[in-house]
Amino acid sequence: MHRLLSSLTIFATTLAGIVAASPAAAQFARPDDAIKYRQSVMTVMNTHLGRIGAVAQGKAAYDAKTTMDNANIVMTMSRLPFAAFVEGSHKGDTNAKPEIWKEMDKFQAAAKNMQEQAVKLDAAAKSGNLDAIKVVFGSTAKSCKDCHDKYQNE
Amino acid sequence: MHRLLSSLTIFATTLAGIVAASPAAAQFARPDDAIKYRQSVMTVMNTHLGRIGAVAQGKAAYDAKTTMDNANIVMTMSRLPFAAFVEGSHKGDTNAKPEIWKEMDKFQAAAKNMQEQAVKLDAAAKSGNLDAIKVVFGSTAKSCKDCHDKYQNE
Repeated sequence: MHRLLSSLTIFATTLAGIVAASPAAAQFARPDDAIKYRQSVMTVMNTHLGRIGAVAQGKAAYDAKTTMDNANIVMTMSRLPFAAFVEGSHKGDTNAKPEIWKEMDKFQAAAKNMQEQAVKLDAAAKSGNLDAIKVVFGSTAKSCKDCHDKYQNE
Repeated sequence: MHRLLSSLTIFATTLAGIVAASPAAAQFARPDDAIKYRQSVMTVMNTHLGRIGAVAQGKAAYDAKTTMDNANIVMTMSRLPFAAFVEGSHKGDTNAKPEIWKEMDKFQAAAKNMQEQAVKLDAAAKSGNLDAIKVVFGSTAKSCKDCHDKYQNE
């Protein structure tokens, strides 16, 4: 009985480990799926950030509701791509530099910086203050560029 | 003076028309951008719907918070792709059938059906009732399939 319990405990512990790890690798059947997913997230994020950029740069009319929607999508997307830089996904149809996996801590810190900017952008959009939106758009775009300069092949 | 005002009115009216139309075509510089964007949205939506599907089919453990997050992303994504079926984007690297543009009303009705399912799925996920999630996952997946069967080349 003790042996059975012990086996069950080991099984349950292993299972818990797998479930805890599942937000990353286990979510993608193949590295290519992770690559396609993170690129898709980036495309959606970039599209909606670009629409705020057009407003910030005076190329498009400012509409409070539309900018709020765009900022909210940017914030939602900002949380998604980084769990998809799974082991083995440095190869394939990707511009991600191998440095990402060599210095994952620094990469994740750069990601966190961008995510924090996206939260600020969402707040600025909700405030309806165009001047604030312009400022935070600038720092958000910079956080994207900083990370791409370091970790993305052109 | 009256002539100037009249010209200004025409200009303002035209401008309002452009801004009102901007959620669709004017948001994408080229048809290819619209195609890439809507495919990206579909990839993100499909990834997160698939994670709920794995839970609904008993292939992954049910975690209320994770399922809520996934359902919320599905709902957010469900609202995005249909403005990207712009004129001229039936050609290019797309599986979209030309029928979409020939019967846009029916296509948009199928889209709306899926969007309503996504709202229900979000509500079911928030309820934390796994049986309800399973049911609404099934009807949501069906709404995807129905539209893909009609309007997507394999």
